[in-house]
Amino acid sequence: MAQKPSIPKGTRDFSPEEVAKRNYIFNTIQTEFKRFGFQPIETPSFENSSTLMGKYGDEGDRLIFKILNSGDFLRKADEKSLSEKDSLSLTSSISEKALRYDLTVPFARYVVQHQNEIEFPFKRYQIQPVWRADRPQKGRFREFFQCDADVVGSKSLWQEVEFVQLYDSVFNKLGLDGVSIKINNRKVLSGFAEVIGEQDKLIDFTVALDKLDKIGEEGVKKEMREKGISEEALNKIQPIFNLKGSFAEKIEGLKGILEGSENGQKGIEELQFIQKAIEEMPLSAARLDLDVTLARGLNYYTGAIYEVAAPENVKMGSIGGGGRYDDLTGIFGLKDMSGIGISFGLDRIYLVLEELGLFPETVTENTKVLFINFGEKEALYAMKAVRELRAKNVIAELYPDSAKMGKQMKYADKRQIPYTVLAGEEEMDQQKFTLKNMKSGEQSSLDISGLAEILK
Amino acid sequence: MAQKPSIPKGTRDFSPEEVAKRNYIFNTIQTEFKRFGFQPIETPSFENSSTLMGKYGDEGDRLIFKILNSGDFLRKADEKSLSEKDSLSLTSSISEKALRYDLTVPFARYVVQHQNEIEFPFKRYQIQPVWRADRPQKGRFREFFQCDADVVGSKSLWQEVEFVQLYDSVFNKLGLDGVSIKINNRKVLSGFAEVIGEQDKLIDFTVALDKLDKIGEEGVKKEMREKGISEEALNKIQPIFNLKGSFAEKIEGLKGILEGSENGQKGIEELQFIQKAIEEMPLSAARLDLDVTLARGLNYYTGAIYEVAAPENVKMGSIGGGGRYDDLTGIFGLKDMSGIGISFGLDRIYLVLEELGLFPETVTENTKVLFINFGEKEALYAMKAVRELRAKNVIAELYPDSAKMGKQMKYADKRQIPYTVLAGEEEMDQQKFTLKNMKSGEQSSLDISGLAEILK
Repeated sequence: MAQKPSIPKGTRDFSPEEVAKRNYIFNTIQTEFKRFGFQPIETPSFENSSTLMGKYGDEGDRLIFKILNSGDFLRKADEKSLSEKDSLSLTSSISEKALRYDLTVPFARYVVQHQNEIEFPFKRYQIQPVWRADRPQKGRFREFFQCDADVVGSKSLWQEVEFVQLYDSVFNKLGLDGVSIKINNRKVLSGFAEVIGEQDKLIDFTVALDKLDKIGEEGVKKEMREKGISEEALNKIQPIFNLKGSFAEKIEGLKGILEGSENGQKGIEELQFIQKAIEEMPLSAARLDLDVTLARGLNYYTGAIYEVAAPENVKMGSIGGGGRYDDLTGIFGLKDMSGIGISFGLDRIYLVLEELGLFPETVTENTKVLFINFGEKEALYAMKAVRELRAKNVIAELYPDSAKMGKQMKYADKRQIPYTVLAGEEEMDQQKFTLKNMKSGEQSSLDISGLAEILK
Repeated sequence: MAQKPSIPKGTRDFSPEEVAKRNYIFNTIQTEFKRFGFQPIETPSFENSSTLMGKYGDEGDRLIFKILNSGDFLRKADEKSLSEKDSLSLTSSISEKALRYDLTVPFARYVVQHQNEIEFPFKRYQIQPVWRADRPQKGRFREFFQCDADVVGSKSLWQEVEFVQLYDSVFNKLGLDGVSIKINNRKVLSGFAEVIGEQDKLIDFTVALDKLDKIGEEGVKKEMREKGISEEALNKIQPIFNLKGSFAEKIEGLKGILEGSENGQKGIEELQFIQKAIEEMPLSAARLDLDVTLARGLNYYTGAIYEVAAPENVKMGSIGGGGRYDDLTGIFGLKDMSGIGISFGLDRIYLVLEELGLFPETVTENTKVLFINFGEKEALYAMKAVRELRAKNVIAELYPDSAKMGKQMKYADKRQIPYTVLAGEEEMDQQKFTLKNMKSGEQSSLDISGLAEILK
């Protein structure tokens, strides 16, 4: 019996229209990456498990898709794990490869492996799918694309500036105005923990602070109390919640709060450098905003932290993020390589453009003209014209069968092809074509160059 | 201890230059696919195992990469297979998903699953990676891209013609002259078996005949004898080996050989239709050739069979292939859907273009100009210029650190960046830039619009 076909949960088929729209976003991002001097690399879809495991925490390890060894994999299976039916400990003996979980770890692996072929600083971009065994839900998939740009090999703050410009440039090209690029600095967060005397609770502190948007000031304080942060510390924090105004005004406020912390002052300097540079070179589509609650992958970032919010009239989580990490490649044995990078969230950007109607109408590149098939001789006459039109970059097709006229017209209609050409014996005698505008119904008799002229 | 990084055997990292060259081929193929009216779809990297298993024969099943179920996979594992350590029978109980092995089966699945959203005939293209647990060897990888175009829903021979034109068009755009598009027809092969009275040995017969290029006439006959094909039959075959001359001449020869076979005559008619159409619409870069020994995936194809050979001066296997299959979607329950499709072999086309030096020099899109960094003030002045140049589509970069001049120049040199800009206090005072041609060493003093003019 035939199978009823389906695809695994959390994965997607993309229709021609969806592929065209996704490619529009990919191409826009890629064009800007290139314009900014980033170079493409690609890495394999699966890596050795040892490259990926242990890099994303226990939760990450669990969410990595493992590939079963080929052939008689049980021959090398760990006996003890087998007899105890311990799936977790058995895995490493029956699976040596795993699907890429993100693009950052493979990039770090690439840099270390190819360090002798690379000129540093190395600006690379990478647009490839990643896979996560996450529970699928709205907007969360088990296979999705990441679009990353990173630089390794320099600590220059001009890179922080450049990534702000890169975000702005991409959203400008996508016609997406009103995006907010939020920035923070890990050193500022460390400074807060220092100043309130809770350095050992830095993670708990920032994780709670990061939720301000969602649970409000009281919620954040409640969570901090639960994590054992003292009342005294909470009192000292208060000015953080009161930070208001422009980027420059918030900076002034911060200077007061972080007066006692050298680390914090360093973070402020870095933020100020970026702010001043952007002031000198104003953005086009986006707004740069200081958000001292922003933490993201804190364990990872050591300097700047970015997050991009969609325009305020669209309800959507962050559509991009990134930051600086001072030891990207240390895990693979190459020390002192500072890196900074950003990522674009393709699926969410897609939803935002869809909601705001920002996809250009021309994005789908549909067939422009369908030649109606009246039989073998007429079809050859039509195919010759189709060939000439294609040479002039007009997407033209011949209906393959000499089916009933109504069927062919209906096909053109359903596929939203804007023009049809009818050419029977009479047209052939005169070396002409009858062009029909499918919308207006208007018909005109043209020779091949007239046809090309209108359809181009 | 840090791990020494490596990638799984049979997989590849692609450097910026390689990605650029691969994208050049992808883009060329994609542009022609679009021009011919094919529409893109994409399917998930992994499918339900039931979708893939059993579709490629036992050998194929073995070469499909299986994904281990997430979580406590042993809980649902088959007890009997576990205790008997039977890897093969255990697999289906601990793995429900598998990586795509080709693009054809997922396409068939897509067509059946989405049949109500599709207008037939449906012309689709698909450019995505596939994975095979094959033994890696020169030119054979465990992850590689396929570039496929197929039509389903019509038996019209105009499609056979169109695919010949499509091949020609792509190779013409790639500047690859002298490609040979070899064509055959399954019905001609069936006719041979009929005429010599060995219908039940059709597969053995065609598999042997397909090797004529490699093992010669005597080798083919030897293999046929070993497979139990009679001497009488071998005598009747002789005229096949003697077929010579042009496409039209070979057709005439075939007519005699296949006189007794209705099926064979039908095959000849189909070939003749294609040949005449191409005669009316001559090819640009390729040559159409009749090769009656061509069999390829015989179990699969029911009509036309294509294979593309690289130009004669390049030693390389086939760089493309395809054919018509009358029941593509039957395995998923949708009957009577004739399909025809072709594929481009990216990796081999890459090697051919490399060997013949056919990649355009502009393909890598390297940075055009590097601004030397003399310190914070100068860098801001440079960044403003970089920003203006980028807006004019010039790929420009600032060296991120104010390192020693020699180091920065060396970086430009190693990255083969053709221009550098030096702008210190003097230049800033005059609102000028010193542009240095890295090849000639020539320097000139320009304002921003002069800079843009030269670099554009």
